[in-house]
Amino acid sequence: MIASSQKHWSGDVAELLRAGDDFVLADVDTRATPGYGEDKDQAAEDLAAGAAELDEYQERLFARSRVDATNAAVLLVLQAMDSAGKGGIIRHVVGSVDPQGVALTAFKKPTPEELEHDFLWRVERRLPEPGYIGVFDRSHYEDVLIGRVRSLAPPDEIERRYGAINEFEQRVADSGTRIVKVMLHISHGEQRDRLMERLERPDKHWKYNPGDVDERELWPKYMAAYQTVFERTSTDHAPWYVVPADRKWYARLAVQHLLLEALEDIDPQWPLATFDVEAEKKRLAAS
Amino acid sequence: MIASSQKHWSGDVAELLRAGDDFVLADVDTRATPGYGEDKDQAAEDLAAGAAELDEYQERLFARSRVDATNAAVLLVLQAMDSAGKGGIIRHVVGSVDPQGVALTAFKKPTPEELEHDFLWRVERRLPEPGYIGVFDRSHYEDVLIGRVRSLAPPDEIERRYGAINEFEQRVADSGTRIVKVMLHISHGEQRDRLMERLERPDKHWKYNPGDVDERELWPKYMAAYQTVFERTSTDHAPWYVVPADRKWYARLAVQHLLLEALEDIDPQWPLATFDVEAEKKRLAAS
Repeated sequence: MIASSQKHWSGDVAELLRAGDDFVLADVDTRATPGYGEDKDQAAEDLAAGAAELDEYQERLFARSRVDATNAAVLLVLQAMDSAGKGGIIRHVVGSVDPQGVALTAFKKPTPEELEHDFLWRVERRLPEPGYIGVFDRSHYEDVLIGRVRSLAPPDEIERRYGAINEFEQRVADSGTRIVKVMLHISHGEQRDRLMERLERPDKHWKYNPGDVDERELWPKYMAAYQTVFERTSTDHAPWYVVPADRKWYARLAVQHLLLEALEDIDPQWPLATFDVEAEKKRLAAS
Repeated sequence: MIASSQKHWSGDVAELLRAGDDFVLADVDTRATPGYGEDKDQAAEDLAAGAAELDEYQERLFARSRVDATNAAVLLVLQAMDSAGKGGIIRHVVGSVDPQGVALTAFKKPTPEELEHDFLWRVERRLPEPGYIGVFDRSHYEDVLIGRVRSLAPPDEIERRYGAINEFEQRVADSGTRIVKVMLHISHGEQRDRLMERLERPDKHWKYNPGDVDERELWPKYMAAYQTVFERTSTDHAPWYVVPADRKWYARLAVQHLLLEALEDIDPQWPLATFDVEAEKKRLAAS
């Protein structure tokens, strides 16, 4: 087990959440809390404890990259339907570590310049440098999700992209970046409740877009597109994790757990001094 | 007064810290806590309360920029001698707001490409977009600090830069960005203590660089260069604040206070809905 903050988890959490062979998205209970038997209050405590551990791992990862010849980095890819909680993950999980070690990119509708290039061009440019935790708020997967649902590219181009993504991610993983792909999964009804809350609170109106309701009609098509994504791109070097997200506290704790596992696996150590510590103490004392 | 978290401050803090006419850096007591009479424990409480307020201001600023035609943004420029605490400000003050609304840039030694352009070229590219809090960890001021101390450019070029900076910052301010320039000021002795701590703790070795001791010999030259910076570039549209930083807790609280003042001055309001809220509720309920 990775650390004391993780003591309330049971089973192999990554395995429980992973979209493996025979995975069926429609079978996932979006209100479930796989591997975690405690309640919301305990989860808040565990999240705070995990934040401290994530913080130290991040600093070690960063420190090592400054001194040693290491390419280790982490890339968290977040995908979800609107209101599923990507922002909350960034704020409450990623936001708990030093911002100096995080490289966050929110991918929007491609610009004309980006559209002139292959769909992976803009993604490549935003990969985390060694020592960083990169976070993609949406990603190249939009190009096979909305791209497919709204026919933004011809079918054979969409088809080509799954293979291109796998090759791309293989190369990224081989270069030392641990890839953690997360889909936050809420139910159609939960999304309605969350969008309704945005309409009921004036301080949330800015997050609401009438187009969100139009997208809801395409829900089954999006689910089918996600199912295909999992079948085609959940690989050993870049697995997909489907995190039930109707309970925000569970989703945050689960993503934190997955990040901690990735960092534990890298296990970055404080780098050794590249100078003579005692000699430097003397020089400094005399300065 | 801006908010309840600020109740322990007295006097016009910005005015107390501002490098105005007749400002003399050598007269600043780096252990002082201007405007704040409480101790470290109270400061920790006040910092947490201020963080919640900063968080809401940031979200309002961001929300408004998404909906209204506003250019309002904030730019925090951080300059300091090594170990003065820039990293701590970013981690503990900036790090308390949603990372999705922060644009952080750490300026390093210029790359060959950057050196081919005017010194402000790389800075212009990293200005915060509307709605963001931009943070510069070092900045264009390096070009008149280390640039001057180590003669990295001819004297007439260094001289030209002060005016260029003022014109540049005037344009940035006119476009809607509130500029807050902070120099964290520690004493020569405090720096020795902090560097010594890095030598004594293996988990801090990575932060130590033997070149730091060489730079210490240039301390008087750096202080003279800073003094000139304040005389030439502390303007109404982009004032310099010199924050005594031997006490880290004070420096963090003071910078948070300056950010809160800047945001209070912008006073961003939640944007109004650009759609018919009641009609959307019906559409959503039926979806």
